[in-house]
Amino acid sequence: MTPVEVIRKKRDGGTLTREEMHAFISGYVANEIPDYQMAALLMAVYFNGMTADERAALTDVMLHSGVVVDLSHIPGVKVDKHSTGGVGDKVSLILAPMVAACGVPVPMISGRGLGHTGGTLDKLEAIPGFRTDLSIEEYKRVIAETGLVLIGQTKEIAPADKRMYALRDVTATVESIPLIAGSIMSKKLAEGIDALVLDIKTGNGAFMHTFEDSAALAEALVSIGTSMGKRTVGYITDMNQPLGYMIGNWLEVVESVECLKGRAVADLMEVTYVLGGTMVWLGKRAASIDEGIERCKEAIASGKAFEKFCEVVARQGGDPSYLEHPQRYPRPRHVVEVRSTASGYVTGYATMQIGLLAIALGAGRTKVDDIIDPKAGIIITKKIGDRVERDELLGTIATDRGDVLDRARAAMQSFVAVGETTPSRQQLVHAFVDETGVKPWTTPSLWKGMNR
Amino acid sequence: MTPVEVIRKKRDGGTLTREEMHAFISGYVANEIPDYQMAALLMAVYFNGMTADERAALTDVMLHSGVVVDLSHIPGVKVDKHSTGGVGDKVSLILAPMVAACGVPVPMISGRGLGHTGGTLDKLEAIPGFRTDLSIEEYKRVIAETGLVLIGQTKEIAPADKRMYALRDVTATVESIPLIAGSIMSKKLAEGIDALVLDIKTGNGAFMHTFEDSAALAEALVSIGTSMGKRTVGYITDMNQPLGYMIGNWLEVVESVECLKGRAVADLMEVTYVLGGTMVWLGKRAASIDEGIERCKEAIASGKAFEKFCEVVARQGGDPSYLEHPQRYPRPRHVVEVRSTASGYVTGYATMQIGLLAIALGAGRTKVDDIIDPKAGIIITKKIGDRVERDELLGTIATDRGDVLDRARAAMQSFVAVGETTPSRQQLVHAFVDETGVKPWTTPSLWKGMNR
Repeated sequence: MTPVEVIRKKRDGGTLTREEMHAFISGYVANEIPDYQMAALLMAVYFNGMTADERAALTDVMLHSGVVVDLSHIPGVKVDKHSTGGVGDKVSLILAPMVAACGVPVPMISGRGLGHTGGTLDKLEAIPGFRTDLSIEEYKRVIAETGLVLIGQTKEIAPADKRMYALRDVTATVESIPLIAGSIMSKKLAEGIDALVLDIKTGNGAFMHTFEDSAALAEALVSIGTSMGKRTVGYITDMNQPLGYMIGNWLEVVESVECLKGRAVADLMEVTYVLGGTMVWLGKRAASIDEGIERCKEAIASGKAFEKFCEVVARQGGDPSYLEHPQRYPRPRHVVEVRSTASGYVTGYATMQIGLLAIALGAGRTKVDDIIDPKAGIIITKKIGDRVERDELLGTIATDRGDVLDRARAAMQSFVAVGETTPSRQQLVHAFVDETGVKPWTTPSLWKGMNR
Repeated sequence: MTPVEVIRKKRDGGTLTREEMHAFISGYVANEIPDYQMAALLMAVYFNGMTADERAALTDVMLHSGVVVDLSHIPGVKVDKHSTGGVGDKVSLILAPMVAACGVPVPMISGRGLGHTGGTLDKLEAIPGFRTDLSIEEYKRVIAETGLVLIGQTKEIAPADKRMYALRDVTATVESIPLIAGSIMSKKLAEGIDALVLDIKTGNGAFMHTFEDSAALAEALVSIGTSMGKRTVGYITDMNQPLGYMIGNWLEVVESVECLKGRAVADLMEVTYVLGGTMVWLGKRAASIDEGIERCKEAIASGKAFEKFCEVVARQGGDPSYLEHPQRYPRPRHVVEVRSTASGYVTGYATMQIGLLAIALGAGRTKVDDIIDPKAGIIITKKIGDRVERDELLGTIATDRGDVLDRARAAMQSFVAVGETTPSRQQLVHAFVDETGVKPWTTPSLWKGMNR
């Protein structure tokens, strides 16, 4: 089949074979198939979707466009977590050392901030000296020696995804579940993992705004992972307000360290324990998710999780003394309090706008080559359902940019909705997803013995 | 709006404004918008279509990407015809001089063979010396002096279409009614015409196989022309068998000359008279289509149509003596008779395959730079409904290519279906289309006084 015949087949609703996808994508990576033919195929996929088999084949072809790391010589079930991204989502910083402290190796390749969301890499790089640009060889050495490694995507990993992602961004073909799923899974499966836990965010601060879209993406991701022989489960979790209280790279390190030291932030740790407990269970260090959660709580309480975090920070060139003494960190030029203009209950957050505001303060990029200010960010003081009085503190803005302060203060006020009546209790973990489908989720034992 | 926002808007079913289309297409022609973004937009248009206003704006933008010829200084209503293409469709060669002989100026810019269909330009160039590559200035001089001109698309005409067409061809976005309509009309409206008659072919030898698709294209074309202030009407005509008996460039010139000399080929002249009569009516040289048909029949009977053809051939560098004495033309190396393998009635033609067979004999191109053999082609001897006996002549194959003869003979036999029962009479002109819609067509007076 010629490239144009492959495009026509997908355009007409046909199912592409693995061979057709392999020829098209490898031809594209080899510059034999031009961008305009890939753009046409991507748009046809946007409209006609892909079957489960096609999605698995797409992922497989993208995965094998680059290096697939082999960690089989390292003992234990290697487990990673992937989040589809949100605002204030610093789960990985707590979860990775916590799970590793339970004896489950965690080889983690993370991404940078995208759109209104933050990225684990940017947060880690807020720690002075921390290096995320390890080579594949260094990556293998660190995971073998510390049971944990935290790096960024190298150019050897899934080069097809790198090029296709850049093209999707400029051809309005980002929002396609098979393409999103193929992009995520081709990178994750290249890490050398045995199992994967997914955190699919849903709500006004997530890329997927509705539960239905999030569930469809979750099922696509789980089915790809499963079909590639990796145990894969996921959760659909709420992103209708920032997770925790801090947004911004260094601020999120600080909040993570607080949690690692046992000073739990309720919503943040609920998600972290559910995901972490599931990883410990998949990593065969617990007989159930509940038991996995118990192991995680012990790792926090004993200080082993924080110890593991300090160990990997040091091992990757970072200075752990900043984790012990965060007051040593440089201070932002401006720290401005934002106060409520009304009395009532917090009924909602314009979560995506909060994320974009943090970027405007310097916490993220609007262009690829922007330099992030790790000190910049937002601290919120109220969660949905909390009582707030007029002139009471709503949050704090931290930035070096004096020119944005007035606009930022007014914006922040407008992004927090205050109403007369208490909203109903927000469910945080909406559903569990495995190869048999999407199910409601309850973790009754989660807060047993914890002061919530 | 950025290019990606325009793509996203169309992808999501939105209606593009004239300004958005102008910015996108002029940016594309100026190489500021890359092929991959145009490819994504074209595929989004393929799926989501365009409103009548969008199609008119698209055509207008493509039209004004190049020169729009001004013929307003030439007296009379300038009228052209466009056919969507078929097999054996040599109507233009008869119709253009016939209508010009009735006093209606015919400025005609034609195309080359495309896919399985022949092209008027290739047929004209079969006449020794005939030049189709006139400049815009020569074009204006010839139409002013002879009331008729027959050229090919120059690079000044609708350059946006030229680039978009080439891109559509390699991105599986050819078969889109708004894109087809915009491509046709932007070129036709650049000619300097006042009115246009369309021949939308339907059937197994046309690009549109079903009446519904043909009707949708016809309505799109008529509505664009009308909205641009040009009187535009069309006919949906049958293409389930070759038109006339001859297929191939010089053979079609010969059959056209026969018709111009009054030796009517029934189906060919039925279509030619209906289209020509309509042009004469639009050109205000007749009070009705019926009267226009009468004028056309007189132009043939009086010899004025043939005279006008010889005049324009000479004016454009061709040697009219070949028209008077076709036996002077070089003969193909092989002329092979094909005989029927069965007795019965001809029930159908694999018309597209007949067109492709003619190309394989040398009558068309399979690559852009192939050189056409004007002598190559096929003569059929039977039309649908005709009785044929086993071993009776089905047709003749003419080619210089000795290596294809056996395959061509067997192919030709398989492309003519012979059955036991007479098929019902084929209607040739299915419908008339104007700005009020698609209507059934009957031309009761057409064959009045003619030996059909």
